Amino acid sequence: MNVLIVYAHPEPRSLNGALRDFAVAHLQAAGHTVQVSDLYAMNWKPALDAHDMIERSPDARFDPALDSKRAYENGAQREDIAREQDKLKWADTVILQFPLWWFSMPAIMKGWVERVYAYGFAYGVGEHSDRHWGDRYGEGSLAGKRAMVIVTTGGWESHYSARGINGPIDDVLFPIHHGILYYPGFDVLPPFVVYRAQRMDEARFAETRAALGKRLDELDTTPPIPFRRQNAGDYEIPALTLKPDIAPGKVGFAAHLAA
Amino acid sequence: MNVLIVYAHPEPRSLNGALRDFAVAHLQAAGHTVQVSDLYAMNWKPALDAHDMIERSPDARFDPALDSKRAYENGAQREDIAREQDKLKWADTVILQFPLWWFSMPAIMKGWVERVYAYGFAYGVGEHSDRHWGDRYGEGSLAGKRAMVIVTTGGWESHYSARGINGPIDDVLFPIHHGILYYPGFDVLPPFVVYRAQRMDEARFAETRAALGKRLDELDTTPPIPFRRQNAGDYEIPALTLKPDIAPGKVGFAAHLAA
Repeated sequence: MNVLIVYAHPEPRSLNGALRDFAVAHLQAAGHTVQVSDLYAMNWKPALDAHDMIERSPDARFDPALDSKRAYENGAQREDIAREQDKLKWADTVILQFPLWWFSMPAIMKGWVERVYAYGFAYGVGEHSDRHWGDRYGEGSLAGKRAMVIVTTGGWESHYSARGINGPIDDVLFPIHHGILYYPGFDVLPPFVVYRAQRMDEARFAETRAALGKRLDELDTTPPIPFRRQNAGDYEIPALTLKPDIAPGKVGFAAHLAA
Repeated sequence: MNVLIVYAHPEPRSLNGALRDFAVAHLQAAGHTVQVSDLYAMNWKPALDAHDMIERSPDARFDPALDSKRAYENGAQREDIAREQDKLKWADTVILQFPLWWFSMPAIMKGWVERVYAYGFAYGVGEHSDRHWGDRYGEGSLAGKRAMVIVTTGGWESHYSARGINGPIDDVLFPIHHGILYYPGFDVLPPFVVYRAQRMDEARFAETRAALGKRLDELDTTPPIPFRRQNAGDYEIPALTLKPDIAPGKVGFAAHLAA
């Protein structure tokens, strides 16, 4: 299996760095081929802007979506963007690994998403009609591939529990799981979360490694999060609201999971 | 009143640019003093890394939290970070304005948060004990100030409704409202959201401007989102889960709003 790890931490001698090294070695030992996009080491350009497209008239008004579309269609994307798209096409499984900073991914990884997810590649794909609202949320260029988040937090597990002050971890990660990974077609596996990352002793580090190894061994068989497919009958189109008989009375992120 | 607008859009001739210009002019006409941090125009450095701290030993292991703490305490932060902190101290009201990209703020603005929100300034503030878990979520360095998000989306309002496929807008914005703004002490006003930003005609633009003007006129009187204060009795400490008698049975982001 081909595995792409997109990784964002500024210090290789960190817990994240150690878990990344462990994951690469573990996957390779199991016979998989691994590529790592180490965004800090690559000095990844985080900000999407007009410089991402070559052959642009410098005075033309920049439209992030439409310029991205033109560049993707015409081979006028910057090399670093095209290279990451190729890695995504190559991968069977994509892992996003990062520390949770301010309840989301680090800026450098957010910028990877914004720049690599071109219009025509990750969105704006497929037919828009009164029965099909684009190939997204269960369909799309990346359909058939799997994705998983590996994330570390400073806070405790209880802080991210159903009634914890930070919000439930599944809700905190929903914009990433559903909005960034499921959107272009990935089957999204439950995340691997390491809480209290600042308080890691040898014993817990060994346990964490073992638990991660198990998750990596099961990448191919773990049931994905059962998000509802947009174009398979659960949603009104174009309102894209759940039909009244689907999860009646339920609201919020959890309503988009099949029972 | 002193108003800071932190603004992220790569094209000044955009809807966001027009709304920003309108907001500045409208606030100034009402007698307020306005500063704008136009992150793209400033060429803001998005990625938090070891270069953010001066006088660091280049071989020392970089710890994003602890290095940020040392730099904040010792005046060893990069000038661009200190300048934004000064603007936050100066402001009575802070507005974050951005297009919603992949269900969050653009990377360049996320990087503004990560770099400006130093340990000791925006987190790691106040006493940690069995009755008080730091000055955060309702207390903190920015308490007494107000904040509001102005955000544009490509999607329709129904897509962000209670049963809309993208998730309710209040839940999509919760990590920003609660996790980034309420956390260091801001009173957070309801957001100003412009849907279907790509389909804006003159009539709707005029309506949008008028509605925004009204919101700006009411910055000082609009009731904030009633998030629960962490240290005021609703939460167990240190588990930071809601006490059983608070919103009994309720889970998820909405449980952290007082009735």
